[in-house]
Amino acid sequence: MADTWLEVPPGSPFPAESLPYGVFSSAPGGAPRVGVAVGAHVLDLAPLLDDTVFGRASLNPFLARGPDAWRATRGLLQDLLGHRSRRDEVARHLIALSDVRLHLPVEVADYVDFYSSLHHAQNLGRMLRPDSEALTPNWRHLPVAYHGRAGTVVVSGTPVVRPRGQRREAGDAGPSLGPSTRLDIEAEVGFVVGVGSEPGRGVAVSAFRDHVFGVVLVNDWSARDIQAWEYVPLGPFLGKSFATSVSAWVLPLEALEAARVPSPRQDPPPLPYLAPGEDWGLDLSLEVALNGDVVARPPFASMYWTPAQQLAHMTVNGAALRTGDLYASGTVSGPAPGQQGSLIELSRNGATPIRLPRSCRTPRLPR
Amino acid sequence: MADTWLEVPPGSPFPAESLPYGVFSSAPGGAPRVGVAVGAHVLDLAPLLDDTVFGRASLNPFLARGPDAWRATRGLLQDLLGHRSRRDEVARHLIALSDVRLHLPVEVADYVDFYSSLHHAQNLGRMLRPDSEALTPNWRHLPVAYHGRAGTVVVSGTPVVRPRGQRREAGDAGPSLGPSTRLDIEAEVGFVVGVGSEPGRGVAVSAFRDHVFGVVLVNDWSARDIQAWEYVPLGPFLGKSFATSVSAWVLPLEALEAARVPSPRQDPPPLPYLAPGEDWGLDLSLEVALNGDVVARPPFASMYWTPAQQLAHMTVNGAALRTGDLYASGTVSGPAPGQQGSLIELSRNGATPIRLPRSCRTPRLPR
Repeated sequence: MADTWLEVPPGSPFPAESLPYGVFSSAPGGAPRVGVAVGAHVLDLAPLLDDTVFGRASLNPFLARGPDAWRATRGLLQDLLGHRSRRDEVARHLIALSDVRLHLPVEVADYVDFYSSLHHAQNLGRMLRPDSEALTPNWRHLPVAYHGRAGTVVVSGTPVVRPRGQRREAGDAGPSLGPSTRLDIEAEVGFVVGVGSEPGRGVAVSAFRDHVFGVVLVNDWSARDIQAWEYVPLGPFLGKSFATSVSAWVLPLEALEAARVPSPRQDPPPLPYLAPGEDWGLDLSLEVALNGDVVARPPFASMYWTPAQQLAHMTVNGAALRTGDLYASGTVSGPAPGQQGSLIELSRNGATPIRLPRSCRTPRLPR
Repeated sequence: MADTWLEVPPGSPFPAESLPYGVFSSAPGGAPRVGVAVGAHVLDLAPLLDDTVFGRASLNPFLARGPDAWRATRGLLQDLLGHRSRRDEVARHLIALSDVRLHLPVEVADYVDFYSSLHHAQNLGRMLRPDSEALTPNWRHLPVAYHGRAGTVVVSGTPVVRPRGQRREAGDAGPSLGPSTRLDIEAEVGFVVGVGSEPGRGVAVSAFRDHVFGVVLVNDWSARDIQAWEYVPLGPFLGKSFATSVSAWVLPLEALEAARVPSPRQDPPPLPYLAPGEDWGLDLSLEVALNGDVVARPPFASMYWTPAQQLAHMTVNGAALRTGDLYASGTVSGPAPGQQGSLIELSRNGATPIRLPRSCRTPRLPR
């Protein structure tokens, strides 16, 4: 536990070790600005640190400053929260989380979605392409990915309208248009790029920390019926593009030092530009809950490709990075039952309904 | 020919009927701003029209104003260029094209690339998937597309570094990394969205003109070796993401009224949300030149899906549009020899070398 004079409620998702960044507004009409979550509060950074970069409506200008600035700011915050002598200057910039509205923290430049869980790729391959090998021949040689729609990335909690689209199920005479009948979620971890790169030059695996600021949780909403009909030959499009939800809080990589673990052994070994280098597996425990019932616990440490390898692959062709680029891991699915990060896997493509004890409880009538 | 007091050199790509918009700078250190090309000149709009929206480094703020503003500005320019009495107030804001530097005209929000030429899709299908039907089952039911990388869209003339990447050719023991050995171009037409749309609501085919401002030329650079190895199952990624070049000039749809033609008959008829409505086929003659030799003349009128249908499809799932969204037609290929908009087609996958008389001419030695 980090030392702090601030009272952090037991079980808070925001202990003083984490200090994730977000964009919030308080009071009706208040301008969105940058804050850090700690305990039950948001710390209003612009007045506290007297720095206009935190008065902006997205984290991008701060992210563009780079790793030295990220480290210095985090050190300063740890200092302010760690010393009781500084309590007075800090306390007046604490706002109750219950009094703020949270906004999309990052102005997303390009959004890329990987497909880096071996278990997920095998599960999906078996369901979508039952007559072929579950894994395509390239899968163990490179982290497969596609570009998603940056403009429909929304902050968690934003209502998502059930998409409609074309679908053609087995046995249908032709395609039809209608609301998706197989709406799914995908539990993923996203990586936010702070520092861009030059066109024509790749970013090495070893330069991961020079470019990536931190992580968000991602729900890659997926309309399976639309996706299945459209995705050959150019990949997912409307089955995914209606919305992607990300957490309001961006956790800096520095807060994840203790979570770093070796990634699973890669067989065959990847080409040298993808050699894993230092450990960038992350031992994160995710939970998927539906209406309050936890239906899955996907272990991020089981991911086959690391975020450092993904970054190196994404840029090996010379594609430049920009501040605000977001790339997601792909659905996180572990090998064991109950570890799958999508409903299509948990329900075995609908064959095994998912039980939701809480939602199915007989409602209590008012007495 | 539109009447104008301005002398337009014969054969100029910028007659007074066109009036395309771009972003230029003049003199070293001059700020990029909006101009209109006419004859051998750029018209410097911000001082001429006394409107700061044209003093910006991208067209986006002007595009966001919507169709009434687009129409009014064009009308004003036609008036200024049409009446000799207005010559003096205009002439001092004309800058020679040879004295300006051209910039990316639009800050690209999301970039989508379609695949809407029947002939191109058939040609590529036969080459990339020789054991299957050339067209996938969905192709005649919906305009197939994928998201590309918005951050690597560059203005025509920007140097493009040959991409490197993983490829595995038939007979290779495993994949290798190296510079692409099959770099290709794709001649396309792009459509620039001016007015965004609300999440959760599609844009009807009939609302095309309410959202789309105009067109650009697009070169969808493609590394065929990288693409072939990576694209199953999630579509093109690094084979395309290193660069996409667009013309510096955005031609308003209004300038294309005379080019509107019926699109080819669609069989089977598409679902009602894709019914073609008014004519949005466009009779544009493209040319592909390599080192000065014209190697192809792709006819845009042969495209199977219209840009209005593409827009309706792209949003039918509720995906919102933003100002600056760019969507491209996909490679334009006609049915006849010499009408294909990519080298892989023109060379029949390398089997028939393309002759370049000019480049192969014996160089003249100085005497």
